Amino acid sequence: MALFIKGVNYEYITEDLSNKSELLVSSNPVHKKVPVLIHNGNPICESLVIVQYVDEFFAGAGVPSILPADPYERAIARFWAAYVDDKFFPAMAGIVLVPTEQERVQKVKETFAAIEPLEEAFAVCSKGKAFFSGDSIGYVDLALRSLLIWIEVIRRMCGLEIISASKTPRLAAWAERFGETAAAKKVVPEADQALQYGKKLQAAASAAAASKSK
Amino acid sequence: MALFIKGVNYEYITEDLSNKSELLVSSNPVHKKVPVLIHNGNPICESLVIVQYVDEFFAGAGVPSILPADPYERAIARFWAAYVDDKFFPAMAGIVLVPTEQERVQKVKETFAAIEPLEEAFAVCSKGKAFFSGDSIGYVDLALRSLLIWIEVIRRMCGLEIISASKTPRLAAWAERFGETAAAKKVVPEADQALQYGKKLQAAASAAAASKSK
Repeated sequence: MALFIKGVNYEYITEDLSNKSELLVSSNPVHKKVPVLIHNGNPICESLVIVQYVDEFFAGAGVPSILPADPYERAIARFWAAYVDDKFFPAMAGIVLVPTEQERVQKVKETFAAIEPLEEAFAVCSKGKAFFSGDSIGYVDLALRSLLIWIEVIRRMCGLEIISASKTPRLAAWAERFGETAAAKKVVPEADQALQYGKKLQAAASAAAASKSK
Repeated sequence: MALFIKGVNYEYITEDLSNKSELLVSSNPVHKKVPVLIHNGNPICESLVIVQYVDEFFAGAGVPSILPADPYERAIARFWAAYVDDKFFPAMAGIVLVPTEQERVQKVKETFAAIEPLEEAFAVCSKGKAFFSGDSIGYVDLALRSLLIWIEVIRRMCGLEIISASKTPRLAAWAERFGETAAAKKVVPEADQALQYGKKLQAAASAAAASKSK
């Protein structure tokens, strides 16, 4: 989505995460995770590192910026993007990944607690405009948007509404607005495929727990 | 240390983390953690966000840069700084924080596994020079240096040499060189105080485990 915003053409290569390609493993030997951006033969790893790289490399007159220009506003954007990645995502992923019902209940609690500051942050960051970064999509928008597919997976798997008009009205309206943008329409996450993947992860977590308790 | 490198005067306020000040809680309501930088009345939170802010705000002719200028080199620096924070630090902190001996053994294993890629990264990033970022202290240097005090605390508490001349010779030499810099001499971490804090954390973790198993 960052590349689309910058108007850069790219080739999108999917990965079978149960059978990782030599290209992925050699490009990201430390984490062996997607996404990896390969640019000029250089592999760049970790989502937020990639977005900042794209923002800094493809810059100039007429090219939209993803991070704000002001150092303090950049710091605030980095703070919330890191929050999305380090606090909100691990709690939410835990709903699918933890082996026991007791732990799952705890992760659901943590997830609903972790979304609250983001609902408040939206009010402060957007200053009444459409996105976290104002009139156009920015860094925090991309960070949170990339997780909407998991929010949808959890809604389908567990019936939980992590973002909803009743509890997080600002984020619910934001998600709807985001869905109407050209960037979102161009890069549509495949919810069905993600759902299958989520079910596979949950089954693996349960199986690991069952074999451990034997 | 970032402020010292930039030649910026600052006031350093210590915090009693068992009795957090109103200033800390109101400046960092989300995490309630140190460090917080307050600049022009604006609180900036999270170590790596602060360092990037300092680097971007205090920039210009004659002012040393903490991150490299080249976007790809910046991405590599951000990757390793994030690795230090997200992979290496949690494993190492776990040695002190986990409640049981079995978990502690696991964290020790994870910590020694997590330092290995950093030893390799030093060779690649430094290109044979003194620091991760070349001839002067940069982003990854600051990220890892900030954890040397915890490495020292764990050495004293548990007798573990996480960085050592035998297992991580490049990092051991790097740590020694770093200690000789003006920045390191100016900002001396207080190992004795950190050791007391580490012991307190470990005692709290053990007490929590004991009361849970009752």
